Amino acid sequence: MQTLDVSLGNRTYPIHIGAGLINRAELILPYLKNKQVVIVTNTTVAPLYLKKVAQPLQDAGVNVVEIILPDGEKYKNYETLNLIYDALLENRCERNVTLIALGGGVIGDLTGYAAATYLRGVPFIQMPTTLLSQVDSSVGGKTGINHPQGKNMIGAFYQPKVVLADIDTLQTLPERELSAGIAEVIKYGLIRDAEFFDWLEINANAILRLDKEKTTYAVYRSCQNKAEVVAADELETGERALLNLGHTFGHAIENAMGYGVWLHGEAVAAGTMLAANLSKRLGWLEEKEVIRIRRLFEMVKLPISPPTLDVEKYIALMQLDKKVKDGKIRLVLQQGIGKSLITSDYDVEQLKLTLAES
Amino acid sequence: MQTLDVSLGNRTYPIHIGAGLINRAELILPYLKNKQVVIVTNTTVAPLYLKKVAQPLQDAGVNVVEIILPDGEKYKNYETLNLIYDALLENRCERNVTLIALGGGVIGDLTGYAAATYLRGVPFIQMPTTLLSQVDSSVGGKTGINHPQGKNMIGAFYQPKVVLADIDTLQTLPERELSAGIAEVIKYGLIRDAEFFDWLEINANAILRLDKEKTTYAVYRSCQNKAEVVAADELETGERALLNLGHTFGHAIENAMGYGVWLHGEAVAAGTMLAANLSKRLGWLEEKEVIRIRRLFEMVKLPISPPTLDVEKYIALMQLDKKVKDGKIRLVLQQGIGKSLITSDYDVEQLKLTLAES
Repeated sequence: MQTLDVSLGNRTYPIHIGAGLINRAELILPYLKNKQVVIVTNTTVAPLYLKKVAQPLQDAGVNVVEIILPDGEKYKNYETLNLIYDALLENRCERNVTLIALGGGVIGDLTGYAAATYLRGVPFIQMPTTLLSQVDSSVGGKTGINHPQGKNMIGAFYQPKVVLADIDTLQTLPERELSAGIAEVIKYGLIRDAEFFDWLEINANAILRLDKEKTTYAVYRSCQNKAEVVAADELETGERALLNLGHTFGHAIENAMGYGVWLHGEAVAAGTMLAANLSKRLGWLEEKEVIRIRRLFEMVKLPISPPTLDVEKYIALMQLDKKVKDGKIRLVLQQGIGKSLITSDYDVEQLKLTLAES
Repeated sequence: MQTLDVSLGNRTYPIHIGAGLINRAELILPYLKNKQVVIVTNTTVAPLYLKKVAQPLQDAGVNVVEIILPDGEKYKNYETLNLIYDALLENRCERNVTLIALGGGVIGDLTGYAAATYLRGVPFIQMPTTLLSQVDSSVGGKTGINHPQGKNMIGAFYQPKVVLADIDTLQTLPERELSAGIAEVIKYGLIRDAEFFDWLEINANAILRLDKEKTTYAVYRSCQNKAEVVAADELETGERALLNLGHTFGHAIENAMGYGVWLHGEAVAAGTMLAANLSKRLGWLEEKEVIRIRRLFEMVKLPISPPTLDVEKYIALMQLDKKVKDGKIRLVLQQGIGKSLITSDYDVEQLKLTLAES
């Protein structure tokens, strides 16, 4: 097991990464304020892992309430959130209850947001079971739900007490979702860790095979990168926005296609390629670097081109993004592998050309 | 104009109190991140004050979006909150928009919660127009909405950038609401400021007449008390719970009667009398002190007895309260005027007798 801290003053919390963590109640018990937890999971994860988490806690005398939600991004909405509130109220949960998010990013975001807002805030723990949530959404405290008019429009910054990333749970992850998660792993290499990008070029296949040592390392190094960024800029007033590489494009793709048609990581991969292509057009990134990025995405079976969309529609969808400032779309672009910047100082015509040729 | 600070580190903010503040755009402009505000108000307050706030801002070049909600506690729910989200999204509001809550506690709580959760948090300003909101809900960062199963069950701690309490707006407040607001003013005297309680016994009538100097002082001293408590315990892990004197009883009354039948301050007054009566039964408060408390509530035309309710129903409703810990109802009780404590260490039979005799 590897452990690292997300350093946020009195909200600092550890991330444990490794194999066989999911039933280790002793990693959870120190964080409980009383002997009550509510495990929030979904219909896909529950039959695989719910009992493995719940039983050791019950054996330790903890009262466990289980909430099993429908599975899918389309349920990341107010109605599903309200199912959590209802269950918490029906079970008379008080301020010292602890919520446990057991599942992927949707479960983590919903549960974290419920924890942030139930009785104005109760503690919660992340147990991410997908690669995407292990390397990204479970770390950093972004929680929230979608609104009919846009993704993640409603939410809060709210930090968990501890994150347990059990890489064994990736064994049951569909291949397509594993690949989608690797998109965010590659992202860390691209924005700030060239050495990690190099390592990924060599070890991508080992991760696809879920080699324990390599996978633990990839998750650890991803979380380390994310933790450093989040510690420096918790509320995304600056550097943290770099983590959105590919996301402004990606959100537009997800939105245009209907949430869930493209996986988030797939949309991010295609979006990252758009960012790379635009960066090359602007003269900030070399052709050979674009090729390395494209090849790595191809190796891990991720799309390197977005769906065909009208350029004006792209622009309109991108303008819905939270990163828009004073009407101008701010983008994360590349100045080399391992070096990115956030900027609205680019020629919009070059953006349109990039979208048109894609 | 009187000014005091709520000291919360980098979230410290000033409260300005006085006559004629509502159209002073210069008190708002320094806090705007860009030239856009969204004023959230209701159908009662809008015709009285909306233009007075909006016009000077527009004259200063600020783009003003207006959201006018239905008036009443029963609208402090998710559906109304969603009207705010919808308007923010329709107007493409970005992270540097500032929300202004113009109205009473419901508007403040809804707007503050919308600000806390829209795009994971945007700045907001409180312009409370009722006495209750000026002395209580606009200070301290409690925001939220009701859930069908309980009041204020969903919410966040989220601080405004500045509070402008214009006592002139109290001129249009119905007498009954003015009295209800005074219940919370008296509360500060009871829990921690005996000198203020003495002053209120002398000046209660001047406040009922809305004497500018006395009213400004009463609001100022109330906010000062609240600010001190909040600065010491922002997240209500300890002392802040004293501010709930009368509230556990009061919430049960509001819930039992249907929200809005009894005004919050009326329920708090009756609840405070119940707390005083129980404190006397426990031997912690003298008869003559109970009489002083009762007389002051009577002077300002507040109820001193709760509605007749079944004792077991009272207990069940009180157990819904957020202050319940491990199933035992914690109550704020009196050990003299100006001295209160929060405790679950009392004889439940004495509580039942107090409820039965009321």
